Amino acid sequence: MIIQDMRNLLSANDRIAAGNRERFKRWGAYVVNLMSAPGAGKTTILEQTLAHLHERYRLAVIEGDVRGSYDRDRLHAVAEIPIVQINTEVAYGGECHLDALMIANGIGDIDLPGTNLVFIENVGNLVCPAEFDVGEDSKVMVASVTEGEDKPLKYPLMYSVCELLLLNKVDLATAAGFDRELFLKNCHSVNPGLKIIELSARTGKGVPAWLDWLTSKVPA
Amino acid sequence: MIIQDMRNLLSANDRIAAGNRERFKRWGAYVVNLMSAPGAGKTTILEQTLAHLHERYRLAVIEGDVRGSYDRDRLHAVAEIPIVQINTEVAYGGECHLDALMIANGIGDIDLPGTNLVFIENVGNLVCPAEFDVGEDSKVMVASVTEGEDKPLKYPLMYSVCELLLLNKVDLATAAGFDRELFLKNCHSVNPGLKIIELSARTGKGVPAWLDWLTSKVPA
Repeated sequence: MIIQDMRNLLSANDRIAAGNRERFKRWGAYVVNLMSAPGAGKTTILEQTLAHLHERYRLAVIEGDVRGSYDRDRLHAVAEIPIVQINTEVAYGGECHLDALMIANGIGDIDLPGTNLVFIENVGNLVCPAEFDVGEDSKVMVASVTEGEDKPLKYPLMYSVCELLLLNKVDLATAAGFDRELFLKNCHSVNPGLKIIELSARTGKGVPAWLDWLTSKVPA
Repeated sequence: MIIQDMRNLLSANDRIAAGNRERFKRWGAYVVNLMSAPGAGKTTILEQTLAHLHERYRLAVIEGDVRGSYDRDRLHAVAEIPIVQINTEVAYGGECHLDALMIANGIGDIDLPGTNLVFIENVGNLVCPAEFDVGEDSKVMVASVTEGEDKPLKYPLMYSVCELLLLNKVDLATAAGFDRELFLKNCHSVNPGLKIIELSARTGKGVPAWLDWLTSKVPA
């Protein structure tokens, strides 16, 4: 009866997410769900992250894309780590986000005990990915200075559910006329506790602060 | 029986879209469905467009956002034209796109005979908006040079269904290290007939070519 109650209480996605979470825990992995608009720089940030951490950590990546494996190929060129590719177009009607079932299916029989850090690169989208628990430990989003200052107000759920924001492409801030104070104000109006790390994945500026955050979550 | 067959043939959305299309035709309006990733510059392009055309055309805008009316306010500051605001968070569970029913509901009893050009500014998203006919005459997308060259390959449906791409923020191309040839090649591999206009809504460069395209569709 208790099991039945639980089944009624939790939505299907949340139940599957809980299973994923247990699974990742058995591996010993801390899981980061990385989300952003298309082109904000998730993959470039992961390239930097893998380059810096792959000798100190046992890493894995779950790649979510509507089609193709372009990001998987970019990451494999940096480090030969396990990467699971999920294409929503093939099996999930072209969905604009990852959900817990896709992660469960994507992992399938794969078991990676000893993996201590897993990155889930979600489909580029500021709306629906924010709605789905996929079994991660931390939701982290990337925003780019070129997207404009108003995005926290227009996509409030994404900015609310994340604990950390990586503000990327700060090397373009001046050229883009980016109003940093206004953006930070808008972020904190939606999510007062949001931690923000400013960086440029392309130049490497600010990346150490992101690596420090990861290390604080997952001692090497 | 014929009506029944039609009902079975067309999806619910497509039937409602056809109704929208008839309605817009009665107004006398040409309708452009403008789509892009968040922050690509749809609103800035519309600001430019309204500033240049509002004295020559009778314009209207349908604004789609998850929350808020920030873009409506920006556009109203440029020109006092009719703007319908649709918030998907209020009535549609925070949907990540506009569909035909939202447009039909949004218009409601509003009748704008004599309007000759209507812009629908869709929710910022490169996935689901591409799937929904909303009754427009032309699907136009905006991409920014800061999004990277691989986006046509990763969001192929959006790049396929549009007849025109406005490649925005060309003033940032050099600073962003944008590979124009690769991007154009990727665009045309997905949609060989895609017309591309390169512009910067911020500086105004290239905007006349976009206005010429509109004028070719809708003589003033």
